[in-house]
Order: sequence, then C-alpha cells, then structure tokens
Amino acid sequence: MNQNICNRRTFLTATTLAGVSAVFLKQCLAQSVSVAQEKEAMKLSFRPYELKLNHPFTLATSSRTATPGVQLEIEFGGKIGYGEAALPPYLGESAESVLAFLKRIDLTMFSSPFETEDILGYVDKITENNTAAKAAVDIALHDLIGKLLGVPCYQLLGLSPKQIPPTTFTISIAQPDVIRTQTQEAAGKFKILKVKLGRDNDKDIIETIRSVTDLPLIVDVNQGWKNKHFALDNIYWLKEKGIVMVEQPLPKSWWEEAGWLTERSPLPVFADESVQRISDVMKIKGYFSGINIKLMKCTGMREAWKMINLARVCHLGVMLGCMTETSCAIAAAVHLSSAADFVDLDGNLLISNDLFQGIRLENGRQLPTDLSGLGISKIEQ
Amino acid sequence: MNQNICNRRTFLTATTLAGVSAVFLKQCLAQSVSVAQEKEAMKLSFRPYELKLNHPFTLATSSRTATPGVQLEIEFGGKIGYGEAALPPYLGESAESVLAFLKRIDLTMFSSPFETEDILGYVDKITENNTAAKAAVDIALHDLIGKLLGVPCYQLLGLSPKQIPPTTFTISIAQPDVIRTQTQEAAGKFKILKVKLGRDNDKDIIETIRSVTDLPLIVDVNQGWKNKHFALDNIYWLKEKGIVMVEQPLPKSWWEEAGWLTERSPLPVFADESVQRISDVMKIKGYFSGINIKLMKCTGMREAWKMINLARVCHLGVMLGCMTETSCAIAAAVHLSSAADFVDLDGNLLISNDLFQGIRLENGRQLPTDLSGLGISKIEQ
Repeated sequence: MNQNICNRRTFLTATTLAGVSAVFLKQCLAQSVSVAQEKEAMKLSFRPYELKLNHPFTLATSSRTATPGVQLEIEFGGKIGYGEAALPPYLGESAESVLAFLKRIDLTMFSSPFETEDILGYVDKITENNTAAKAAVDIALHDLIGKLLGVPCYQLLGLSPKQIPPTTFTISIAQPDVIRTQTQEAAGKFKILKVKLGRDNDKDIIETIRSVTDLPLIVDVNQGWKNKHFALDNIYWLKEKGIVMVEQPLPKSWWEEAGWLTERSPLPVFADESVQRISDVMKIKGYFSGINIKLMKCTGMREAWKMINLARVCHLGVMLGCMTETSCAIAAAVHLSSAADFVDLDGNLLISNDLFQGIRLENGRQLPTDLSGLGISKIEQ
Repeated sequence: MNQNICNRRTFLTATTLAGVSAVFLKQCLAQSVSVAQEKEAMKLSFRPYELKLNHPFTLATSSRTATPGVQLEIEFGGKIGYGEAALPPYLGESAESVLAFLKRIDLTMFSSPFETEDILGYVDKITENNTAAKAAVDIALHDLIGKLLGVPCYQLLGLSPKQIPPTTFTISIAQPDVIRTQTQEAAGKFKILKVKLGRDNDKDIIETIRSVTDLPLIVDVNQGWKNKHFALDNIYWLKEKGIVMVEQPLPKSWWEEAGWLTERSPLPVFADESVQRISDVMKIKGYFSGINIKLMKCTGMREAWKMINLARVCHLGVMLGCMTETSCAIAAAVHLSSAADFVDLDGNLLISNDLFQGIRLENGRQLPTDLSGLGISKIEQ
C-alpha cells in the first residue's frame, strides 16, 4: 500500500520542478498504515461465457454471430456482486486474456470493497490494457457495494433514473426488406434508432429506414469515411433526413480532419474509437462535439463517471454506449445513464442467452429496478 | 425538473454546431417525469453561528478574532445531516447573505437526498456565487446520506482513511517569542507546519521557526509577493530552509508570471486564490504545480471530489484546505483527504467554541471516526 501512496504523489517528480523536498517524500514513505485489517477477504471467481447474438452483427469491417465474454463474481459480507467482460474482437481481448488477467488479482490485501479507489488503482496497474477485464471487476464491486448498503447503484452515484434519456436501438445492416422489417419492429418500441454506416450503400440504408419511420436517428460510421469533404457532404444530406448525431465518421487518427469536420458540421460529431479512457478526454475538445463512453473501453463505472464529469468541464456531450453484453454490464451503464445526453444501451436486447433480468425497456428507455446494487438477478437456466 | 434535463444538454446549442435537430430537443422536453414522489420531504433549517478564534488570525492583508458562520441541518428519514458555511471576509459572503440564499432553497421538489446531482445542480443555479452557502447544503446532504446508509462518507467515496496524509498546522504571524512558543507546541503534535508569509519579515519568520524545529514547512504567501524575480529568489532561499511547497506567491491575476515562476521554481507552487471551482482547474495547468481545494470556495464535497479527479488528469497536485470551521466542515474535507497530496485541515483546532466532536488528531493526521456520515456528534453545550 505504501507504494500506492507514493504513486499518487508522482506529480511531485513528474512536473518540471527538479528539487522537490526529500523530506516530504520520506514522510510519505514513513506514513503509518497500521489500521487493523478486517478478517474477511473478498472472494473473486470467474468463468468464460459466450454471448449468442439474435442476428449476425455487421459493422463496416466485420460480421459475427457470437461475442466472447467472461462472467465474474465477488463475494463479501454474505453478498455477491456480479461483473462481466464483453469481448468484441476489435477490443483486442479474448476470454483467455481476461482469465489470465483475473488470475493475477489478489484482493486479500484490501479489507473491504469500499476501498474502491485503491482496489481499482491496483487492478489498473497490473497491465496497461485489459480494460474489459478491469471493467468486470469494477462492475462487480459496484454491485456488491450497492447490495451491502441496500441501495441501487444510481443512488450511490447521486443520480436520478427519472432523467434517463431513451436508448437508441441499432438496426443491423442487411437486405432492404430485412432492414424494413427490423425498423418496423423497432419503431414500435424505441424513440430513437441507430444505424451503422460507412460502406458504399449509406444513402440506400437511410432511405430504406425512412420509408418506414421518421424517428430520430444516430449514424455510427465506425471510421468508415475516408475523406473529410465526402463526410461533410454526407452529414448535410443526413441532417435533411432527420439524423441527429454522427459517430466517428473518420479514421480515429485523423485529428485535424475531425476538427475541420466538427467545426463545419450541422450535426454533433461524437468520438468513439478516438476516445477510450479518461486520459483521452481532454484532447477531444476542439475536435469532436462529444464522446461515446463504454464501460468495456474505460475500465468500468468509476472511470466512466469521472469521464462524464470531465466531459462536462470540457463542454463535451456524453453518449453511453455498450458492446453486446448481458443485462449485467448493461445495467452498470444504465445506472449512470441519467448523466448522459445520448444512451446506446441495447446490448442485452441483441442476445439470446442473457444470464440476468432486471433492466426493463419502458417507453423506449432502459430503466433499472429499485433493487440494491445493479438491481439484477440471475435467470433460472 | 424538465428544465434541468435540458440544461444538461446545452452543449447541443453551446457548440459551434448550428442546426442540431429539433426532434431530439423536443423529445427531451417530452420526457416522462412521472415517477411517483415520496411523501416525505427534506426539512432544511439553519442559523448563524460565529466562530471564536483561540488567537487573532493574521494574513498578509488583515487580522481578526472571529469568523462569521452559518450552521445548517437537513432532516429526512429520521436522520439529521449537518452542514456549515464558514465566512472569512475575503470570500465575499456574510451570515446575512448566506441566510438570504438558504431561504430561497425549496427541497420539496426532490424525493430524497440521494438525488444529489439534481439537488446540487438546482442549488448552484440559484445564484452565481454564494459558494459557502452551497457548501453547507452539500455537506449536510453527504452527512445525511451516510447516516441513512449507515456508512462513513469516505466509504461512500470509495476512499480509505489509511492513506490520509498528515495535516499542516498554521503558525500565526506574531512576535518572535510567540512564534517560538507556538512552533514548539505545534512541533510536538504535527508532522508538517504552515506559515503565512508575504510581508516584509518573511526570512525572520522562517529563521525563528527554524530555531525551534526542522519539520517540513509549507509557506502560504497569499499573493503577497509583487515581483516574479523576488519570488524566485525567495523560493530558492526557502528550499535551503526545508520548505516543501509554496502557495499562491503572486497576485491571482498574474498568470504569465505564475507560469514563469512555476517553470523555474525548485519547489512545487500551488494555486489558492487563482482557483475556486472546477471550471478553473484546467486553466491552472502550465501555470502552477497544483491546486488548493477548499469546500467553501468550490461548493462542497461533490464538486471537490470532481476537482480532485480532474486535477489528476491534468497531472496537478492536490491540497485540501479549509477556513476556520467547526469539526463539521473540517470532517467533510477529512473524508476526502486520502485523495490529496497535502492536507491543511487545522481549522477546527483554531476555534474555542466548536459545536461538534468526531475528528481526532493522531500522529499529526486529522482522522475521521468510523461512524456513519461525517462521523461527528454535537458537543453538549
């Protein structure tokens, strides 16, 4: 723990100030850490669990029918907190890498899940990446803390579910008649839709959807447009078609082009692939209108909440997104979602083998229960 | 509440993006806010309470023997949360202005203290300033929530008191023999001291203290030096004398000079008067090494915690400071203090009429109890 204390103080050496007093650093090292530890330790367990998709999922660059995942539990004080890592291939994690990461975690040095900042700081330092594995731990800790205190996670965060915006529902890229059927079904249940663009039939897809519904639409280009002028022309056209926001139109490394586009765009342009963790948020300002925060990218609820607060200081909009996930990780994002401007939390609706219940889709919004923690319970298999 | 929802979305119009879809804004306005309200309302009460100082308090520009204050309570669910506004003259608030502000607050529109983000957002919008009055509400809400959940506030924040750094204790500016006596007394109880400089006898004061103790020292210049070269010379001299940090050496509007000084300074240079709220933090980067966060300046614990997280992203050091306050507002800062690099929370030790008990000074550190909320209780008068 002493090492952690001093790591927190690396600013003293990280600044350009050369000669920071050794006295204070020494004092920091000598700091007493003798508070008695509780006897009980947190118990961590985990297992792989593949999520089966209702329909094949097609992006600008790939298509798949299942998503690997890992389910995790932390037991403490007679309660079990549930967590989850969802592992779409582009994240760079696999069930194997997550299991290997989780095996390295030793929670016995912490006296309770309430030492959240220290626990997650320790977990984050184990490797540089593995953000989905880290998110699984974070989510389980939040569920556990809520259960130990007997309140839903949104209350722990000081948030009110009354203000949760409607979720988008993603229309898969498919043949026109399939898109029409999907859209028709979705339009009855959702207040805002999302569609993946970035191939050669963008306008056809939009026209097909517009032949069925006038609902507001978000388009997610997934870096699919490779020219800023082409992108701007598209966005002007999309605005005429009632699109309300454009996600990651250009390749993630195209910062100058993104800034050029956002400045001229008649629609908000949000970063997705260009932003992962809190350290990325400040550089977004001036290049995008907002950020898409996903728990699997940013290591979980605690960092997501910090990112939301930082985005607000930077006058950036906030979208809360997801992977294909069970109702566990979706619930974790739902508990934060009243603080977002756009909510894209349909991941649990896309799978056929959800493990949990506890999120209800009501009037187009994904709502938590009033039960403690994430408010979810296991579905009897 | 609907207004709040849309205020959160002002980024949509605040960006340079002209034509954001009216569809989404309309949808936002139409959002259902029909969740049943709880019957019980939070009850707010408050009264002025003047803090009497053990010794006259001398800054570079003033001296006083008492500090006006306001004590506040919020009652809900059979529990009472305590809050406090401390009002040193330079803050620009008086007991009268605080009472006038508090009278404008209507908590009946909120169903519970757990709607913290909405409540504090509403309170913050009542006026532009009144940060101490706002802090009183914030502190009472945190105490109340902790009591309702049966856990100390530091646990709600996910922090561990094991990592709380030692507090500085401020040596008053006085005649040399008085300084010597004060320092001698303080050196027995504290691990780090602080002294206010910025008049014409800075070196005499330091030499007097150094004739008694070698403890690390922070100097707070309170904008007292009016020349950057003079400041840099002083800091080099102070480093030789075992000083570990310099607070606000130059006038708060001297940004360029502060940047010049921080770049060359052999000691960390922290902003105090140059930073008040979270919106000020990002502009500090490049001009100072760190920030002094005070609850009475920044509207309370919730914004202070957000500021700490933002400071970390900006690679800024964090000091948690205070005014002369009872153990109520001091406890509020103590619960956050394990996340700070420097702690300056001696305010309750400087008054003769504290209203609360519950902070213990142990081995130079101000520690909270394990009781719920702020962990304080009223002293029988």
